[in-house]
Amino acid sequence: MMQTAQTIQDIIEKVATFTNDDAPKITRLVYQESWVQAQDYLLTLGQSLGMNVAIDEMGNGILTVKGTEEGVVTLGSHLDSVVDAGKYDGVYGIAAAIIAVKELVDSYGTPKQDMQIFLFSEEEGSRFPMNFSGSRFIIDDLPEMEQLKDGDGAFFMAERKKALDVLKAKFPVGQAQQPISFAEIHIEQGPVLERKNKQIGLVTGIVAQKKFTVTVNGEANHAGTTPMSMRKDALKQALQLIGYLEEVTQTIGEPFVYTVGEMKVSPNVTNVVPRQAVFSIDIRHLDAHQLDVFEEKMHAYIQKKEAQTGMTMSVECWLNEPSERMDTEFLTLLETICKEKKLTYEKMPSGAGHDTQIMNLVTRTALLFVPSHNGISHSPYEYTASEDLENGKEVLKELIHRLAY
Amino acid sequence: MMQTAQTIQDIIEKVATFTNDDAPKITRLVYQESWVQAQDYLLTLGQSLGMNVAIDEMGNGILTVKGTEEGVVTLGSHLDSVVDAGKYDGVYGIAAAIIAVKELVDSYGTPKQDMQIFLFSEEEGSRFPMNFSGSRFIIDDLPEMEQLKDGDGAFFMAERKKALDVLKAKFPVGQAQQPISFAEIHIEQGPVLERKNKQIGLVTGIVAQKKFTVTVNGEANHAGTTPMSMRKDALKQALQLIGYLEEVTQTIGEPFVYTVGEMKVSPNVTNVVPRQAVFSIDIRHLDAHQLDVFEEKMHAYIQKKEAQTGMTMSVECWLNEPSERMDTEFLTLLETICKEKKLTYEKMPSGAGHDTQIMNLVTRTALLFVPSHNGISHSPYEYTASEDLENGKEVLKELIHRLAY
Repeated sequence: MMQTAQTIQDIIEKVATFTNDDAPKITRLVYQESWVQAQDYLLTLGQSLGMNVAIDEMGNGILTVKGTEEGVVTLGSHLDSVVDAGKYDGVYGIAAAIIAVKELVDSYGTPKQDMQIFLFSEEEGSRFPMNFSGSRFIIDDLPEMEQLKDGDGAFFMAERKKALDVLKAKFPVGQAQQPISFAEIHIEQGPVLERKNKQIGLVTGIVAQKKFTVTVNGEANHAGTTPMSMRKDALKQALQLIGYLEEVTQTIGEPFVYTVGEMKVSPNVTNVVPRQAVFSIDIRHLDAHQLDVFEEKMHAYIQKKEAQTGMTMSVECWLNEPSERMDTEFLTLLETICKEKKLTYEKMPSGAGHDTQIMNLVTRTALLFVPSHNGISHSPYEYTASEDLENGKEVLKELIHRLAY
Repeated sequence: MMQTAQTIQDIIEKVATFTNDDAPKITRLVYQESWVQAQDYLLTLGQSLGMNVAIDEMGNGILTVKGTEEGVVTLGSHLDSVVDAGKYDGVYGIAAAIIAVKELVDSYGTPKQDMQIFLFSEEEGSRFPMNFSGSRFIIDDLPEMEQLKDGDGAFFMAERKKALDVLKAKFPVGQAQQPISFAEIHIEQGPVLERKNKQIGLVTGIVAQKKFTVTVNGEANHAGTTPMSMRKDALKQALQLIGYLEEVTQTIGEPFVYTVGEMKVSPNVTNVVPRQAVFSIDIRHLDAHQLDVFEEKMHAYIQKKEAQTGMTMSVECWLNEPSERMDTEFLTLLETICKEKKLTYEKMPSGAGHDTQIMNLVTRTALLFVPSHNGISHSPYEYTASEDLENGKEVLKELIHRLAY
C-alpha cells in the first residue's frame, strides 16, 4: 500500500538541510522558516506514505494510520533544535517512528488500534523562555503565552501564527487523539551505552532535578599583607563546600550526578583575597529522596561552617523538578523484545529531559535510547551509527506491533 | 629658624583635597592636575619650613636641609595614589618625613649630614604600565618610556613634560644626591599590627613574590547524562589542586601567603561539566626558597594528576620578584629606639611593595609601619589614628637624629 521507504538516515540527512546555519551546524528554532520547512517536509513524507496528516493549533504535526478498533498507540519526538546543534537530537525519534509505522503497515496491514505519531513543535526551549510547549499543548498544560517573547523581542503568538498560516494552507488543521500510551526513541546524549558496549538503553525514568545558586560572602583583602590566619576567603570556603559535596556525592553513589558548572568570583583580581564566590549546583537522581539527602547535608555543613568562620553562605533553590517513572510493563516487554532480537541492553535513567516526561503526566510511557558517540550532543559533532539507528527502530517497531496489532 | 609646624594630620588632610574625585575618594595619578597641585603644595610647604627645594626631570620633589659635613641621610615616600584610594597611602610617609626633619632642625639645629626627602612622583603604576618610576629614576634603572601610554592613549613623555613645565616655572630643577641610606615610613596596609595590638612595625624585608596562571583542561559534558565516573571536570580538578596547595601552605606556615584571587570557568553554564578552569596563584614570602618549595610541590602534584586523569594542567609563571632585605643594623637601632620610647613593636615582613625595595638595590634601607585600621588600604575607608601617625614619626625622627647629627 505504501511507497518505497526512505531510510531513517535519509530522513535525518534531509531534515538537517533545514537549518539557519551551514552544515554541519543545525539551528532550527520553533516557528522559524527552517522549522516550517522541516515540518512541511515531514508531513509531506507521511502523506506520501499513506498516513493521515494534520497540524494542530500549536504547530505539532500529527501523522495517523487508522486502525479497525478503538484505541490509539502514540509515538513521537520533537523537530526543533538548540542553537549549533547536531542532526540526530529529536529528529531521530520522528524518523524512526515514521519508518517503524510504515514497515508495520507494509508487513501486517491495517492495525487494530490507531497508530499516531506526534511531530512535536518544540521541546528545547531555545527560542522562547518555555520548553516542552508542543507536548504540553497536547496534554493541555500550557502556561500563559501572551507576553512570551524571543531574544529579538518577537512575540510567541505572532511568530506561531505566521508559521502556522503557511502550514495550514497546505495541511488540514486537526487535533490529537489523547494518547493512552506513548513511546519515544532518542539518542542517549550521554556516553553510558557506548562505554558499556550496549545497543539499546531502556529508560527506567527521567531523573528528578534540583538547581541551586550558592553565595559565599567573605572579606576582600590584600593578597600580600593579610596573613593566612586572618583571612575570610570566600573562594576558599566555596571550594571546601564543593569538595565536601563531592564526598556526599560519592556516598550516595551513581547514578546520582552533581555538577558545579558556573563559578563567579569577586573582585576576581590576582592580588586580592576573594570577597565573594557565587556558584551553581545541579543535582539529579531518579530517586528524588537522594536529592533531599544531599540538600540536607549541604545545609548542615553550611550552618556549621558559618558558625566556625563568621562568613555567610546562602543557598537559593531555583529549580526543583520531580522524577517521572516510565511504565514497568512496557519496560518488561521491551526487555523481552531486546532478548528476542539478541540486542544487548542497559536499564538506565535519563539524566536529560524529554517530551516523554510530559506525556507521562497523562499516560503510561516508554523511552528508548540508542548509543551516542562519545556522549556528545547539542553539538555538530553529535553522531550515532546507522546500525544503532536501525536497531532502535526495530525495538520500537516490535513494541508498537504488540500494542497496535 | 623654621615656621610653626603643621601636623602630619593637617598635611594629609590638605593633600587629600588634591584629587580627581570628591572626598573621601582619592584619585591622584602621576602628572595629572591633582598631582601637580599636590607636588606644588608639598614643595611650597618644605620651602616655607626653610628647606632647599628642587624638582628633578622625572617629577620627583627633593627637599634638603644642608649639613656641615659630607654625607646625606635620605627619607621619602610617594605622592601618587591608586584609583579610589584613601588619603594615608604614600602621603603619610612624606608628611612624617617633613615634620620629622623640621622638628630635628628646630630642636638640634643644623645637622652634620644633609637630610634629603624624596617626594617620589609615582609608585603605584596606576596610570601607565610601569611602577616605581620615581625611585627607579633616582637609581638610574628605568626601562624605555618613549612608547608608554596611559589608558586614554596619552603618552608618558608628553604628560610628564606638561606637568613639569608648570612646576619648573616655580621651583628650581635639581638632581638628587645619591642616597647612602634610606628610610621610609608607611601605613601597614594589612591587619597584623592592629590585631596584635602593636604600635610600630619594623620591616625585616619586602617579600619575594611569584604569580602563576594555571590552566586545567577537561572535557565539557552534559550535567545530567554523564555519570560522575566518566567525567573530566576541569573545575573539580582545579579545586583539588587549590586544596592541595592550601595544605602545602599550612606546612610552610606563616608568614607565607598563598592567594587564588582570579578564577575563570568555561563554558560557565549551570548544566555543563566545566571544560576548562583558569586561575591565578599569588605566593609571597621573605625567604624566596619557600616559593620554590611551593612551586616544586605544585609541579609534582600536577604531573601525578595529569597521569591519573588524562587531563592537562599547565602553569605559567608570569611574575617572579626577589625579596629585598632591610638593613639589619638599622633594624637593631630601630628596636632600641622603640624600647627607649616604650613603643610596642613587631618585626615583620612587608607583603606589599614599596619604594624602599628600589632604594635597597643601591643602599641600605629601613622601612617602618604604623597600624592600618582593619588592614584596609587602597580604599576611601583607609584609616590610621593620629596617635599612630605621631608614634611612627617619632621613631623615624629618632633614627634620622642618630644618623644625621
